[in-house]
Amino acid sequence: MVIGPHPNRTVALGFIDALERRDWSALENLLDPGLVFEMPQSNERIRGRDRYVQFNREYPGEWHLAAKRVVVDDTDGVVLFDWRVGDEGGDAMTFLTFVGGRLATITDYWPEPYAAPPGREHLTEPIGPSRPLG
Amino acid sequence: MVIGPHPNRTVALGFIDALERRDWSALENLLDPGLVFEMPQSNERIRGRDRYVQFNREYPGEWHLAAKRVVVDDTDGVVLFDWRVGDEGGDAMTFLTFVGGRLATITDYWPEPYAAPPGREHLTEPIGPSRPLG
Repeated sequence: MVIGPHPNRTVALGFIDALERRDWSALENLLDPGLVFEMPQSNERIRGRDRYVQFNREYPGEWHLAAKRVVVDDTDGVVLFDWRVGDEGGDAMTFLTFVGGRLATITDYWPEPYAAPPGREHLTEPIGPSRPLG
Repeated sequence: MVIGPHPNRTVALGFIDALERRDWSALENLLDPGLVFEMPQSNERIRGRDRYVQFNREYPGEWHLAAKRVVVDDTDGVVLFDWRVGDEGGDAMTFLTFVGGRLATITDYWPEPYAAPPGREHLTEPIGPSRPLG
């Protein structure tokens, strides 16, 4: 018997992939009509599948997304992904909930680089010279 | 038959709880000796359980942590948690990997609030007046 990936894992990866490919009908098929999207850092919420698809269609820039880590269970999921816009990029993450094989909520976080605080150099080392958001 | 929570969920929640309680021996018991801790935003890595415990013991401030969402599978996990230091606070998240029931890697992200970019007010509403990092 072969146990495949959890169905919600397929949905989570398909979501990032549909965004990356600008495949709006594939994206729509992964979303519950009553989808609620939140960006807590900017205190913004978008209600409804149609407005969320429009938000992504209208989002400016030549952005690219690629999933790096995915964790799902029967109701919740998280994708850590790499984003790129030209020479800029970094890590971001989206927290998901699933209802009936579709996304019911999407909550995005976009962390920014910051300087390492002083006073802990006796414990730390750089992750790497070329990947500040590695 | 009662199916309890995934054992890795118990580890993930116990990790946040041990930090909150400053229970350093409970924390140590949840960590693989070869633990690797990373903070990609500041490009910092800490190698080893002992140094990671020391980092937390020495971390300044009256900080408090409380788990909000947990997702785990057999190898990976994520905890979204609320942090508080005095009147300040917000959401942060830690990505975990598990080996033999202990944490093998911990990767923290600490997102900051930012102003909502203009041009999407036709789609968005505030999440709430009093919870900018909801």
